[in-house]
Amino acid sequence: MSLKITGIGHYLPPKVETAKELSDKINKSENWIISRTGVKERRVSLIDVDLMAANAASVAIGGEGSPDLILNASGVGKQIIPDTSVFIQRELNMSGVPSFSIHATCLSFLVALKVANDFLSSGSYKRILIVSSDRGTVGRNFNEPESSSLLGDGAAAVIVENDPKDKSMLIDWRFETWPEGAEFTQVKGGGTNLHPDNPKTNSADNYFSMSGPRVYRMARKKVHSMIKDILASNNTSLDEVDMVVPHQASYFAVQAYASYGGFDESKVVNVIEEMGNCVAASLPLALAVSIEREKIKRGMKVLLVGTGAGLSNAAALIKY
Amino acid sequence: MSLKITGIGHYLPPKVETAKELSDKINKSENWIISRTGVKERRVSLIDVDLMAANAASVAIGGEGSPDLILNASGVGKQIIPDTSVFIQRELNMSGVPSFSIHATCLSFLVALKVANDFLSSGSYKRILIVSSDRGTVGRNFNEPESSSLLGDGAAAVIVENDPKDKSMLIDWRFETWPEGAEFTQVKGGGTNLHPDNPKTNSADNYFSMSGPRVYRMARKKVHSMIKDILASNNTSLDEVDMVVPHQASYFAVQAYASYGGFDESKVVNVIEEMGNCVAASLPLALAVSIEREKIKRGMKVLLVGTGAGLSNAAALIKY
Repeated sequence: MSLKITGIGHYLPPKVETAKELSDKINKSENWIISRTGVKERRVSLIDVDLMAANAASVAIGGEGSPDLILNASGVGKQIIPDTSVFIQRELNMSGVPSFSIHATCLSFLVALKVANDFLSSGSYKRILIVSSDRGTVGRNFNEPESSSLLGDGAAAVIVENDPKDKSMLIDWRFETWPEGAEFTQVKGGGTNLHPDNPKTNSADNYFSMSGPRVYRMARKKVHSMIKDILASNNTSLDEVDMVVPHQASYFAVQAYASYGGFDESKVVNVIEEMGNCVAASLPLALAVSIEREKIKRGMKVLLVGTGAGLSNAAALIKY
Repeated sequence: MSLKITGIGHYLPPKVETAKELSDKINKSENWIISRTGVKERRVSLIDVDLMAANAASVAIGGEGSPDLILNASGVGKQIIPDTSVFIQRELNMSGVPSFSIHATCLSFLVALKVANDFLSSGSYKRILIVSSDRGTVGRNFNEPESSSLLGDGAAAVIVENDPKDKSMLIDWRFETWPEGAEFTQVKGGGTNLHPDNPKTNSADNYFSMSGPRVYRMARKKVHSMIKDILASNNTSLDEVDMVVPHQASYFAVQAYASYGGFDESKVVNVIEEMGNCVAASLPLALAVSIEREKIKRGMKVLLVGTGAGLSNAAALIKY
């Protein structure tokens, strides 16, 4: 099915926080941070997720007209109600365009890509904006040094269209959820279970918590099987995949696509050292940067893949 | 495009709170509550949204096998991360089934219905569970008597499948968003803007706030135009619509489909007196109850329609 990324853009906040600057906040050394998470620096946003998203989206839209649908595909919203798509749309000055949010934590972008693909196929929409924007640094718990060393802020956006004359396409897609891992990656508060005013809610419940090793152990084999399956189903060998764009969960999770997954290391996009884990924005950020740096070119076969809180795993094989 | 609702179920918590019982909490009389909002009683859930959803979903699934996709289409989640679909899936014991959430506040169910329709059309999935579950009573601000008189708790679920031999279908769909109304219906807290620990966050920011009259004034004409458009595009007169299932925003909003919209009052499903506004669960609850009470029967043309925070408006014309 034809799916062409006709616009792409990203926004990285100007403020850089280095591992050295973070080290005082979490009582760990610069070396500890880099050796544990691989994150040398991350961006810290002083503007909220809707403005970050609009900045990335404006670049993706370029001089072309409004999209006919806006999909917010982020991890954490600006507020509980309305959903963040509305505020992004307000910044873009596109009143009347339908807007909603897809939430699959770090995999929101991959899920939105599939929803957009099927909307384009059915002819419901012609030009869809997908935007992921996360400000994970707001949710850092400095008493949990490992997860707070990982998170960074950023946003990325794509415009997707259906051009049957073009060879760009979503070749195939996989998605699965394993709630045995529901408690490995959490922000427990903010909803109906542990409302901010609930006496049972602790301050830590309102911050991000992740057991990286448990996620890694649970995900590694499952993601490997998923990759083998999507490639085999589409008669594609590892070598025929031109680039792998993983969710930037951690340095070791990204590296595992080479060390364990068998892809040549030069093909696995790794931006976590410079950006950290930007939640749902990580994957489209890695994609945007790879396209801008001309590592991904038209006609290439690209595997977008990752894990998210849930635990969910997803993969999309695209021809860019 | 074929879309058949092959299973439907709902869950209403056993605990009833009458207008009289509520009146003391908000310093208003029973009469004030009923004359302003039309809500004579609502349910108050002692279990959380995931369990409520699983109860409704179990009825919808019945003796049949697992769905191959779970779409959570609720207004407010159990917690910030992971998205609530994961917890619903955990309760349903369906490990491995892909699950994610769609958020368009009170219109989440109508958006999910369209996403499911296009997923079924493309052959990506065969049997999709859509479940909406909201526990609005947790978010009531008793200092805002009107909105806290409206909210109630409930959950509803459908199974949708594609049966090309069947005449059941999603005939057409409309959706639009007007962020000029973004501040008419809000829970401002819980996200990156007003994090629970942000000194700028007031307690009221963590509760539901709505200006019903402003929503009504902005929505009435727009929804009316949307209905005229979807019916005209499908050569359907008002009289040919067998039933109208509106989001149960308020008694007056529901009544407006007859008084202003021109539908015969007997065709407009009204359950708000007995359930209140159950956020995203309201519309599928009204649908489930109408089917169970045999007001909606196979072959009928049904208009699902409503407004949501955003402000968004949506309509789906289906052949049940």
